[in-house]
Amino acid sequence: MPTPAVVLLSGGLDSATCLAIAADEGLAPHAMSFRYGQVHTTELDAARRVAAALGAVEHRVVDIDLAAFGGSSLLGDGEIPKGREADIGDGIPSTYVPARNTVFLAYALAWAEVLGANDIFIGVNALDYSGYPDCRPEFIAAFEAAANAGTRTGTEGDGYRIRAPLIHLTKAEIIGLGTGLGVDYAMTVTCYDATADGACGECDACVLRRRGFDEAGVADPTRYR
Amino acid sequence: MPTPAVVLLSGGLDSATCLAIAADEGLAPHAMSFRYGQVHTTELDAARRVAAALGAVEHRVVDIDLAAFGGSSLLGDGEIPKGREADIGDGIPSTYVPARNTVFLAYALAWAEVLGANDIFIGVNALDYSGYPDCRPEFIAAFEAAANAGTRTGTEGDGYRIRAPLIHLTKAEIIGLGTGLGVDYAMTVTCYDATADGACGECDACVLRRRGFDEAGVADPTRYR
Repeated sequence: MPTPAVVLLSGGLDSATCLAIAADEGLAPHAMSFRYGQVHTTELDAARRVAAALGAVEHRVVDIDLAAFGGSSLLGDGEIPKGREADIGDGIPSTYVPARNTVFLAYALAWAEVLGANDIFIGVNALDYSGYPDCRPEFIAAFEAAANAGTRTGTEGDGYRIRAPLIHLTKAEIIGLGTGLGVDYAMTVTCYDATADGACGECDACVLRRRGFDEAGVADPTRYR
Repeated sequence: MPTPAVVLLSGGLDSATCLAIAADEGLAPHAMSFRYGQVHTTELDAARRVAAALGAVEHRVVDIDLAAFGGSSLLGDGEIPKGREADIGDGIPSTYVPARNTVFLAYALAWAEVLGANDIFIGVNALDYSGYPDCRPEFIAAFEAAANAGTRTGTEGDGYRIRAPLIHLTKAEIIGLGTGLGVDYAMTVTCYDATADGACGECDACVLRRRGFDEAGVADPTRYR
């Protein structure tokens, strides 16, 4: 039986690439997504398509009530920032969701502990980093240490690895890597303001994604509305 | 305005004492409890009473679906261990819930980030430690490091302190401390198998609690069925 792994899957470009990497390593990927009152619920449909297409053994969607905490434009608190491309990388943006990756990784860790998985994949990226503190290598390393200090597998077993294989890659490199692994990026949704009609093409996420396809020399399959 | 703090409140003896400590420090305690399919739901009623009695500014009960992960007798998977007093402290017990305190602290961190709180209280205890890896000082320190690496307050603000004021106290010392701060322990529920009729008196948690009152020389107010 192949070794299980947990893959956090948002339905976006980065996490789809992570899932492909886990499968390519011969692991049995168990994909986990979250329904947390985000404006861009079309991501979850994308996550389902991606999980099926890339051979996830199982796909769980966990309901969490981050909306109760407020404090982020991604959760309907204030405007999604657009047309401020020059500002990308300038401080923590309003789309930051308090402790989001900590909550996501905590759930992934719980599932990994039950599955007997040692690897947890998360598609964070520090280079195309648009200011989220929980996407930095320092955070990933610190969470891994906490995971190993606070669990059965960490203290009595082989321990956990928080795998962030994209963390030092450019968006173009990620797209090149995933294309080589057969990821169909037309299935993925990156836009902060996506609707059934497609992506906005203007938010920070769209701008970074479009630039990535440009630089990778790969035709951008994104449907813009 | 007093400084806010987040206090994880289970409705048990330890977390009630933590809430009293936070209030005694002059902080404005915001209590957070979880509904996660645990067998002992009577704890949540206890948490509500304790939050009100000890002056919590707000009390939030967060729904989480840990039951979906299974793997613990506390979540209805297998028998609650009883009558094995001699075994307490011998390995990780079946009542261990995978990554439970990691999930709880992640939610507390998200709320703290929104409230502007720097202190997060958790009533873990390493001395009367019955084998949970996520109750050890090593885990608390590691989670604090992750919290500070992965948040706005940790990277741009004053940072977080994960406060575990009971971690090196015996149960008797905790009871003595809380009694001095006016905690009415009759309100709290510790039993893994509590019902509306009272505590079982036989599970690990009941055994440790009863022994604590004994050693503290405080009359045990627990209602046993």
